[in-house]
Amino acid sequence: MSPLAANDTRFVVSDDLARDLAARFGTPTYVLSERILRERASRFVSAWPGDVSFASKANNTWSVLKIAFSEGCSIDVASEGELRAALGAGVPAQACRLHGNNKSLQELTFAVNQGVGKIIVDCFEEIERLKELSPLPVLLLRVAPGVDPKTHHKISTGQADTKFGFAVRDVEKAVARCRELGMPLAGLHCHVGSQLLDAEAQVAGAETLVELAVRLKKEMGFVTTHLNVGGGLGVRYTNGDEPVAIEDYCRDIVNAIRTGLKGELDPELGMEPGRSLVAEAGVTLYTVGAVKTAANGRVYVAVDGGLSDNPRPALYGSKYDLVWHASSQGTASHTVTVSGKHCETDTLFPDVQAPVGLQAGDLVQILSTGAYNSVMASNYNALPRPATILVREDGRTQVVQVREQYESMFVRESVPEDL
Amino acid sequence: MSPLAANDTRFVVSDDLARDLAARFGTPTYVLSERILRERASRFVSAWPGDVSFASKANNTWSVLKIAFSEGCSIDVASEGELRAALGAGVPAQACRLHGNNKSLQELTFAVNQGVGKIIVDCFEEIERLKELSPLPVLLLRVAPGVDPKTHHKISTGQADTKFGFAVRDVEKAVARCRELGMPLAGLHCHVGSQLLDAEAQVAGAETLVELAVRLKKEMGFVTTHLNVGGGLGVRYTNGDEPVAIEDYCRDIVNAIRTGLKGELDPELGMEPGRSLVAEAGVTLYTVGAVKTAANGRVYVAVDGGLSDNPRPALYGSKYDLVWHASSQGTASHTVTVSGKHCETDTLFPDVQAPVGLQAGDLVQILSTGAYNSVMASNYNALPRPATILVREDGRTQVVQVREQYESMFVRESVPEDL
Repeated sequence: MSPLAANDTRFVVSDDLARDLAARFGTPTYVLSERILRERASRFVSAWPGDVSFASKANNTWSVLKIAFSEGCSIDVASEGELRAALGAGVPAQACRLHGNNKSLQELTFAVNQGVGKIIVDCFEEIERLKELSPLPVLLLRVAPGVDPKTHHKISTGQADTKFGFAVRDVEKAVARCRELGMPLAGLHCHVGSQLLDAEAQVAGAETLVELAVRLKKEMGFVTTHLNVGGGLGVRYTNGDEPVAIEDYCRDIVNAIRTGLKGELDPELGMEPGRSLVAEAGVTLYTVGAVKTAANGRVYVAVDGGLSDNPRPALYGSKYDLVWHASSQGTASHTVTVSGKHCETDTLFPDVQAPVGLQAGDLVQILSTGAYNSVMASNYNALPRPATILVREDGRTQVVQVREQYESMFVRESVPEDL
Repeated sequence: MSPLAANDTRFVVSDDLARDLAARFGTPTYVLSERILRERASRFVSAWPGDVSFASKANNTWSVLKIAFSEGCSIDVASEGELRAALGAGVPAQACRLHGNNKSLQELTFAVNQGVGKIIVDCFEEIERLKELSPLPVLLLRVAPGVDPKTHHKISTGQADTKFGFAVRDVEKAVARCRELGMPLAGLHCHVGSQLLDAEAQVAGAETLVELAVRLKKEMGFVTTHLNVGGGLGVRYTNGDEPVAIEDYCRDIVNAIRTGLKGELDPELGMEPGRSLVAEAGVTLYTVGAVKTAANGRVYVAVDGGLSDNPRPALYGSKYDLVWHASSQGTASHTVTVSGKHCETDTLFPDVQAPVGLQAGDLVQILSTGAYNSVMASNYNALPRPATILVREDGRTQVVQVREQYESMFVRESVPEDL
C-alpha cells in the first residue's frame, strides 16, 4: 500500500525492497527510479515546444544524464566538471549548454574545443575571454530580470540583487560588444529561482526577457533566435508542497512568451528543469543506530548518515517526508527528531512522526532526495559517500555510483618525508 | 607589513607568496602554516596538565595529524574514517580516542581490533555493541551536562536538548550496566559547544562533570580516573572576535575542576581542541574571475571557489577577514560582496571592503580557514576539491593534499551496459 496520495508522484521504495537493498548494499544509500526519471523527462519534452535542458547540477550521476539525454533532453552544465560528466555519460558536447557566473578561460577553452552546443554568457569579462576562442557555438546572454521569486533567498537568482547575468540596463552594451567582435550571439537567457510551486515568477521573468527581445530588435535590429527562461519548477518535498503539473507550468510560460512576442520574433524556446526532473525520483535509505531521550524529553533517533550526504536541512532548513521500516508491529507513533552521525548538531528532520518502539537496525527512507544530495555530498567526519542504486524499469537493481572506498578517500594525501 | 594587530596570531600569506603559490599550484588552494600549527599545539600541551587530543574532525589532512601528534597531542577521531586517517598519518591507534553519537558495530570492531586507546561511549546501544568486543580499551561515558553555551545553535552540543551523550539522570544506569558487563569504564566526558570565546561555558560543563564524578564515587563507589571536558575554544575569524588566550582558558578550566574535586578524586584530565588548534593556521587563496555591478548597485566580485570548498558562510552565516592582492596600485576601497563560482546564490562574504579597481586575475586570501573547510569540501557543480599547501618552518612550500583530478572524481560511476 503506498503511503502517498493519488496525485503524489514521488518514488517510494517498498518495505521489502528497502530491506533487501540495505542488506545487499548497506546504508546510507541513494535509490533512484528509472521509471520516474523517464516519465518526468518525457513529460517535459512533450509539454515544452523547444529545447529541454536537464540542469545536471541537480544530479550528475552519469546514468541519470544518460537517461535524461535518451528521453530527448539536452544537458545544462555549469562547469568544466559537469561538462566532463556529460561527456563521460556519452552525451555529445553539441547537446550540452555551458553555464556559470565565473567561467575561467581554461573552462571555456575546454568547452569550445569539445564542441559544446551553446554557451550562456554571464558577464563582460566572459565576452573578452570568448573572443580568443573559435569556432564559437551559439551564445546567449544571461539577463538578471529583476524578478523576486517567492522562494528561499539562497536559491533565488533572478532578482535585481544577484551575482548572475547582465543587469537589464547593461544588455544593449553587451549585445553591441558581441556584435563588434563578430560573435554568434543568438539570444537571451534568464533564471528566476528554484523550488517555485507555480509558474508566476517564471512567467514574470519570461515577460521581462520578451520585452527586452522586442526592444533589442526595434532599437538595435538584434533578432533573438534563442530564448531560454531557465528552470525553477518545484517538487513535493513534503505533503504540504503542491507544485503545479509540468504540463500546466510549461503551458503558462509558453503562453506568456507568445503573447509578449506578438509574432514579431519566433525564437527557439529553452527550458532547464533540474530538481523537478530528478528530485522526486530518488530516496535515501538510512539505518537507525540509536534512540535516546534527551534531558528535556526530546526523543532523538540517530541514523548512519547526515550532513555529509544531505546538507540541505542545514543549508536551507529543508523539510522532507519520511517512511519508516520498523521491526515493531504497532501502529502507534510519536514525535521524534532524526539526527545524523556527525560530530556536530546535525539535526536532519526535527519533529517528525515515527513508530513507537523504533530501534537500532530499523530503516527509514527519505523521499524526494534525488536532487542536490549526491552532488552536494562531502566526506565530513571522513564518512565515505553513499552508493546510488538505480531501480530499473523491469525491477532489477543496479549500482550506478559505487559507495566510496576509504582508499580512494585518502588518495590525495601526500605527507612530506621529513615531516 | 602584516595587516594584523600585534596580538593577532592568524596566518597571513605575504603578497609575493600568494602570487607565487597561485602561479605554481593554481587556485582555489588551502595554505597551512606548519609554524602556527606547531605553536598552537605546543601551547595547549604546555598549558594543559593531561591529555590534549586534537579533534581531527576540524582538519584530517594527514600532515596536520602528524604535526599535532609530534607536538604531543593524541588524536580525537569521530568515525572509522577519521581513525583510518590518523593511522594513515602514522599515529598509533593507542593514541586515538574514538567519538561518535552513532558508532556502528563495524566501526567499533575496527577500532577495537586496531587497538584504539579510548572509546567515549555515547548511548546505551553502544554499551551493548561493545560487550561483544575484546580486549576493550579505557571507556568514558559522554554526558550531556545541560549547559547552554553562547554560540551558534548548530555547534552547541552540551545543552539539555542534544543528540549527544547520556542525560545526567541516565548516567548511574549506564555506569551500572558497564559494571554489570565487567567493562573497563574509567570516567566521564562532556563537550559543551564550539567557537566559545571565553572559558565560561566549558567551566560550567566541567563543574557539572565534577559534581557527577563526586556523586558517583559517594553513591556507587565508582572512581573516575579519566575526566575529559571536550573542546570548544574559539578562534579569531574576524577582527571582532577576541578569544581568550589558550593558557588562560586552560587555567580557568583546570582550576574549576580542582576546586570541584576537593581532593576526593585525581583523574587524568582530557581536553580536545580542534578549531582552536588549526583554524588560524590556514588561509584559502582564490582568484577573482569577474567584477560586476548588479541592477541595485551592489558590486559582486566572483571568485573561483565557493560553497564547495567553504560551506561555512552558507551553513552558519560565518564571517571572515579577507586580504586582497590586487594589481591596481590605489589605496581607495569600497564595499563589495564576494560570491562563489557555483550555480547557486553562494554569497561567501557579503559587504566586505575591497580595493577600487579590482579585476579578473587578482587574488584574495581568506584568513582562519584551516578548520572545517577541507574536511567539509564537496564536489558540488563537479568542482575538484582544492589542494592544500604546507608552508614549512624553513619556508619551503609542499603539497600535502593534491588538487582533485577529474578522473578520480568520476571513479565511482558505473553505467549499466543496457541503459
